Amino acid sequence: MSFTHFNDSGRAYMVEVTGKDDTSRTAIASGKITMRPETIQAIQNERIKKGDVLSVAQIAGIMGAKKTSDLIPMCHQLMLTGVDLRFEIGTNSILIEAEVKTVGKTGVEMEALTAATLAALTIYDMCKAIDKEMVISEISLMKKTGGKSGDYLREGLK
Amino acid sequence: MSFTHFNDSGRAYMVEVTGKDDTSRTAIASGKITMRPETIQAIQNERIKKGDVLSVAQIAGIMGAKKTSDLIPMCHQLMLTGVDLRFEIGTNSILIEAEVKTVGKTGVEMEALTAATLAALTIYDMCKAIDKEMVISEISLMKKTGGKSGDYLREGLK
Amino acid sequence: MSFTHFNDSGRAYMVEVTGKDDTSRTAIASGKITMRPETIQAIQNERIKKGDVLSVAQIAGIMGAKKTSDLIPMCHQLMLTGVDLRFEIGTNSILIEAEVKTVGKTGVEMEALTAATLAALTIYDMCKAIDKEMVISEISLMKKTGGKSGDYLREGLK
Amino acid sequence: MSFTHFNDSGRAYMVEVTGKDDTSRTAIASGKITMRPETIQAIQNERIKKGDVLSVAQIAGIMGAKKTSDLIPMCHQLMLTGVDLRFEIGTNSILIEAEVKTVGKTGVEMEALTAATLAALTIYDMCKAIDKEMVISEISLMKKTGGKSGDYLREGLK
Amino acid sequence: MSFTHFNDSGRAYMVEVTGKDDTSRTAIASGKITMRPETIQAIQNERIKKGDVLSVAQIAGIMGAKKTSDLIPMCHQLMLTGVDLRFEIGTNSILIEAEVKTVGKTGVEMEALTAATLAALTIYDMCKAIDKEMVISEISLMKKTGGKSGDYLREGLK
Amino acid sequence: MSFTHFNDSGRAYMVEVTGKDDTSRTAIASGKITMRPETIQAIQNERIKKGDVLSVAQIAGIMGAKKTSDLIPMCHQLMLTGVDLRFEIGTNSILIEAEVKTVGKTGVEMEALTAATLAALTIYDMCKAIDKEMVISEISLMKKTGGKSGDYLREGLK
Repeated sequence: MSFTHFNDSGRAYMVEVTGKDDTSRTAIASGKITMRPETIQAIQNERIKKGDVLSVAQIAGIMGAKKTSDLIPMCHQLMLTGVDLRFEIGTNSILIEAEVKTVGKTGVEMEALTAATLAALTIYDMCKAIDKEMVISEISLMKKTGGKSGDYLREGLK
Repeated sequence: MSFTHFNDSGRAYMVEVTGKDDTSRTAIASGKITMRPETIQAIQNERIKKGDVLSVAQIAGIMGAKKTSDLIPMCHQLMLTGVDLRFEIGTNSILIEAEVKTVGKTGVEMEALTAATLAALTIYDMCKAIDKEMVISEISLMKKTGGKSGDYLREGLK
Repeated sequence: MSFTHFNDSGRAYMVEVTGKDDTSRTAIASGKITMRPETIQAIQNERIKKGDVLSVAQIAGIMGAKKTSDLIPMCHQLMLTGVDLRFEIGTNSILIEAEVKTVGKTGVEMEALTAATLAALTIYDMCKAIDKEMVISEISLMKKTGGKSGDYLREGLK
Repeated sequence: MSFTHFNDSGRAYMVEVTGKDDTSRTAIASGKITMRPETIQAIQNERIKKGDVLSVAQIAGIMGAKKTSDLIPMCHQLMLTGVDLRFEIGTNSILIEAEVKTVGKTGVEMEALTAATLAALTIYDMCKAIDKEMVISEISLMKKTGGKSGDYLREGLK
Repeated sequence: MSFTHFNDSGRAYMVEVTGKDDTSRTAIASGKITMRPETIQAIQNERIKKGDVLSVAQIAGIMGAKKTSDLIPMCHQLMLTGVDLRFEIGTNSILIEAEVKTVGKTGVEMEALTAATLAALTIYDMCKAIDKEMVISEISLMKKTGGKSGDYLREGLK
Repeated sequence: MSFTHFNDSGRAYMVEVTGKDDTSRTAIASGKITMRPETIQAIQNERIKKGDVLSVAQIAGIMGAKKTSDLIPMCHQLMLTGVDLRFEIGTNSILIEAEVKTVGKTGVEMEALTAATLAALTIYDMCKAIDKEMVISEISLMKKTGGKSGDYLREGLK
C-alpha cells in the first residue's frame, strides 16, 4: 500500500483530478458526543425555552462543510449542492449525522466528516461551562456514493 | 444548571468578557484515530521515505487552532502565543495531543480541541485512499490552566 | 407559505440543488447611503486629489461578493463570472448598484446584495471620522435573470 | 473637512493607532428589514414549529462581526469581548439591533453595523423564496462609548 | 494598450467571463529565495533530523493557491484540480517552482504565482531567526496552457 | 545554527511567546516589479483617466497584511495598528515599500513582506493581459524596530 498524496520528494501535494468527470456525489458521516445526563437535560430544558444548542451546532456544521478545503491542507475545493445534519438525543449522548452532496470531481467524505466534527465541537463549546468531561467519539464515514471508486457502505451498518 | 450562551429571547450570543483580565492560559486536548495495522505501517514506511503524514496533520492542527473563532460560532477571538502537537503511534491507532497557549480573557479549550480534531481529520484525508474504516474518537479536554474558574485536570489522568 | 430552508427538526439547512442545471444567471441589487452635503463635498474634493473613497468601496464590494457563502449561513458556493458596481453621487446621498454574474445552479441575488451592502459599509467607514449620522437604506434586489423560477424585475423599476 | 484614510499619494491606508490606549468600547447599530405581512407571519409560524429564521440571522451577525476587518478594507483588527443582537417583529418589518463590545485601540462601530447588516441579509436569504420585495433600510449607528473622541448618541434617540 | 480591469468610471472590476468555456488549464510559476550558505546548510541539517522547512513551505504554497481569489482583488474564483511544488537547493539559494491545474473559465497564472510566493515567504519565516538578509526574487510565469489566448512559454526557457 | 520552529519530533510548531511583553514594533519591507516601459506607460495613462492600478495593489497589500497569520503556517496572530504602502514608478519597474506597525509580542516582518508581495502580485494580475513577462524581485526586509532582538537595518541601506 502506498499513498497518493506525496510527490517524488516526499512532500504532500494536491492530487491531480483534472481529467475526472463531474459526477453527483454524496457522503454521510456520523459522530457522537457523550456527556452527563444532567447536561443532556439542560440542553432539552433550554430548547423548551427556545434556546436550541443543536441549531447553533447545525449552522456551525454547515458553514464548516463549506470551509473544508481551507481546513484540510490537501483537500480539493468543491461547490456543495446540499448539506444537512441530524441529531439524536440519548440519555447521556447525542448522535450527529451529517449528509453532504455535490456535483464534482472528488468526493465529499471530508466535508461530511468536517460538518459532523464541527457540530460536535460547537456542542462542546456551548455546554463546557456546565460540563468539561464531554467526549467526542465514533467520528466515521457511514456511506459514500458516486465517483469511479464506487459506493461505500460502512460494514455492519444497519 | 443553565446556559450562559443564550440571551433572553433564547438566541445564542457571544458571552461578554469585557471586564475580565488578560491572563496566561493553557489547554491540552487529546484525541485518537484508529485504523488498520497496515495503514499504520504505510504511514511509517512513508515517513522513512521522508513523506510524513503527521507533519501535514500537525500544520493543519496549528493553522486550524488559529481559525477557531471563525469555526465555532460563539467562540471569542484570541491571539495564540504557542501551539504544538504530539503524536504517539500504536499498532492500530495514533494518539494526538494538542497544547495551546494564550494571554487573554478567555480559555483556549476550544482551540486545543480544534487543533486535535483537525489533525485527526487530516490524517483521515491523507489515508482515506487506502483505508475508509478509520474512526476518530476520545476527543476530550485533558488539562486547562489559568482563568478565574481555576485549573482543570481530567479525572483519572496519569 | 412555508420555508424551504428548514428541515423536519426545524433546523436550517442548505437546500439541495444537486439536480439543477448550471445556467447563466445575473442579479442587480442597489442601495443608498445618505450623508451630510459637506461629506459628499469632501468625497468629491478628495477624488480631485486622487483619493477615491468609492474605489475602496468598489473593491470591498467585489471582494465581499466572492465571500457571500462564507457570510450568509445557508448560501450555496458559486464561482462568480463577473462583478461590477456603479455609484451615482447626489447632493446628500450616493446610490450604489452592484451587478453580479455566474454560471451555476443557484442565483446570485445574495452576492449582489452583499456587494452593495459592503460597499455602503466601506463608505461609512471611510467617512465616519467626519460624519457619524450617515444612514444606509433602500437595499433591495432590482433585477434577476436565469434559473427555473424565471426573471424578476422590481415593480415600478424604470 | 478632510479624510484621515488617505496618504500623500491619495491612496487609502490603515490609519495608525499604535499610540492609543486599550480602552473599553461599545457600539450599538440598528437596521430594519421591511417585508410583506404574510412573510412576517410565515416567520412567526415557523418559529412556533421551532424553525427560527432570526436565530440563523443572529449567528450570521455574530460571526460576521468577528470578520469585520476582513470585509472593510481599512478596518483595524479587534478582539471582540461581547456581541449580541435583538430583534423586534412588527407587522411588516423587523427591527434589528446589534451591540458589540471590545477592549482595544479603536471603536466597534463598523463591527456593530456589520453585524446588523449581515443579520438583515440573512433574513433576506431565508425568506427570498417567498418574498423578493424585501428592503433593508435605516442601518445606522445608534450609540458609541469609549475612546478619545468621546461618546456618541444618535440625535433624537429616545 | 489599455486595461481590461477598469470600468467607465475608472474603477477596477472583475472582468466578465460568463460566456467562456470551461477548459483544462495549467500554469507554472517560479521564484527564488537567496540566503547565506550557512542558512542553506541549516535547512539541510534539519531535514536530516526530519524537520523539513520545505514541507511547511509546500503546504503554505498549496493552501495559498486555494485562497488566491481572496487575496488578489479582481481574481476570479476557481476550483483547482491539482497543485504541486518543486524545490531545488543550491549553495546560496532555493529555486521554487509551482504548478497549478484547473478546468475553468480563466487561467491559473495568479494561483501559480501565489503558491510560489507564499512558499518563499514561509521559508523566510522559518529561517528569519538565523538570517534576516534573505531576498525573494525572480518570481515570474514560466508556462501557461489552455484558454483562448493560447499557450505561453517564457522566452529563453530551456 | 539551529531552528526554533521545530519540536523534538522534527515537526514545525508555533514558537511560544507567552512570556514576552507587548511592545511597539514596526517593519518595512520592499520589493520590485519589473515590466516593459509600455506597461509602465499604460499604468500612468490609466491613472490620468482615474483608474489607478496602484490603488488596487495598495488595498490588496493592506488586506493581505491582516491575513498574514492565515497564510504563513507558523506565524503568530497580531492586531496591526497601522499599514501603509508607497510606490515609486521608474521607467521599467515599480518599487514597492510596505510599512506595518503593531503593539504585540512578535515582530511584523512577515506582515510587511506579505503586504509588499501581495501588492506586487496584484499589479501583475491587473497588467497581465498586456504583459506576461513581468518579474517580481528584491523582496526583502529593510528595517525592523522593537522587540528583544533589537532593531535591524538592512546593510547598505541609505
